[in-house]
Amino acid sequence: MPTEALRPDFNVACIQYEPLIGRVDANLAAMEIRIREAHAGGASLAVLPELADTGYVFESREELAGLAAPIPHGLSAQRLIALAKELCIHIVCGLAESDGDLFYNSAILCGPDGYIGKFRKLHLWNREKLFFEPGDIGLPVFDTALGPIGLAICYDGWFPETFRQLGLRGAELVCVPTNWVPIPGHDGADVPMANILHQAAAHSNAIYIACADRIGTERGQPFIGSSIIVGPNGRLLAGPASRTGDAILMANVSPGIAVQSRIVSERNDVINDRRPDVYG
Amino acid sequence: MPTEALRPDFNVACIQYEPLIGRVDANLAAMEIRIREAHAGGASLAVLPELADTGYVFESREELAGLAAPIPHGLSAQRLIALAKELCIHIVCGLAESDGDLFYNSAILCGPDGYIGKFRKLHLWNREKLFFEPGDIGLPVFDTALGPIGLAICYDGWFPETFRQLGLRGAELVCVPTNWVPIPGHDGADVPMANILHQAAAHSNAIYIACADRIGTERGQPFIGSSIIVGPNGRLLAGPASRTGDAILMANVSPGIAVQSRIVSERNDVINDRRPDVYG
Repeated sequence: MPTEALRPDFNVACIQYEPLIGRVDANLAAMEIRIREAHAGGASLAVLPELADTGYVFESREELAGLAAPIPHGLSAQRLIALAKELCIHIVCGLAESDGDLFYNSAILCGPDGYIGKFRKLHLWNREKLFFEPGDIGLPVFDTALGPIGLAICYDGWFPETFRQLGLRGAELVCVPTNWVPIPGHDGADVPMANILHQAAAHSNAIYIACADRIGTERGQPFIGSSIIVGPNGRLLAGPASRTGDAILMANVSPGIAVQSRIVSERNDVINDRRPDVYG
Repeated sequence: MPTEALRPDFNVACIQYEPLIGRVDANLAAMEIRIREAHAGGASLAVLPELADTGYVFESREELAGLAAPIPHGLSAQRLIALAKELCIHIVCGLAESDGDLFYNSAILCGPDGYIGKFRKLHLWNREKLFFEPGDIGLPVFDTALGPIGLAICYDGWFPETFRQLGLRGAELVCVPTNWVPIPGHDGADVPMANILHQAAAHSNAIYIACADRIGTERGQPFIGSSIIVGPNGRLLAGPASRTGDAILMANVSPGIAVQSRIVSERNDVINDRRPDVYG
């Protein structure tokens, strides 16, 4: 266990809303209202959904090309960075990123001092494979004033390695912009499988996980809301939000509790107890 | 996806009961009654709890030494092997194993043709570290007449690598003898975290998982029952059983459904979509 003094607690907010396909200005305006509301409510970090500036269901690569922008120098990134500086808040937001002729399903992390870093979705879902490149910058963990933060996007969360790697690299909190869709064979289930996956991942790694999902139906594709904030013992701290309505979830993140959550019995630390010698 | 013809479906049973500390003969008799009952109900495979022959809370290494026996040549293993042959059934059962002067928290797998193999618990929980050696035979997957089967025991399930490795090595079903205990900070929760962990693991790996827990309180240590059988989409096929009562859960295992569960969209296979290039 670290012997250094622990950083102070802070509040993370997950903003669940409905981006409109293709309407970047309107989406940035809608996000700004909600980020200001989360800030007024005491949030030091606001997490927004996947592709929150552009919407999700692109009809063609050309449509995406007309909407995506570089990170950090494009319109959406610059607007979020300016807002983070003005409010002295941290923001994680899913954005459609262009890089030359290539596109990535990305997330930006910025804060009171401006741009901090980005993540490019590693595991692409269904038709995303037609438009986006798979992420090529790994699973970075960013040292921020709030502590070490990792990022993942939607389908990345289906893979336990995502959270294991971020946890082993020191992340105490993983922020997950997402656009969860209904999965065949799970109709009528009370709890979305996505919630269960992130509860298990938080529990196995003794980390906080904050998932901000979108709502609404876009070009026939429904999304399921159900945003959650999970504590490092795997239990829900906030949510699940509704499947259909706007929401701002809020929960306290405490580095002390994350460290303490690794110790699960008198003789067990869930990280130190790993057996990499047999994991192949 | 494998193109070979799929094996037939079969029924797996999880037997939840209360072993009595130190009373190996009585425990074997109690298990035999329940295995016969599961077999009469149509089970081709019966899974029993961790340390189901000896009980769990040993007062000393000496007490354990008087109870543990070799696998497959000790008393408990031989009794289970004989029963499997007689009934033409497969059995997975947690046993206290002795090997010279060393002890392992192990599980046996046997079937109609006798002994098939064993597993030694990799991740030891709390006071087990005082008595048992950590498992030294890895995570084997056994080719059986029912298909490829992997084994894990209790706290092994806290580590997603356990199921990932077994899945990658071809297991379609992982049998988990367990002695789940209450975890501090989870009092009053509706769903045991252990259930959530195994639902996530089944979902991430598209495998069946059958967890047989014990019940009762032994020398002051309570156990939580709640045995489950999880399908390869992460949903419960049977259970959770009660926290306090005997139970025999039963569910159908279909190789076709396991293979099909890997395909989660038109363009996604949850195993092939992995990104080992970035998992470190």
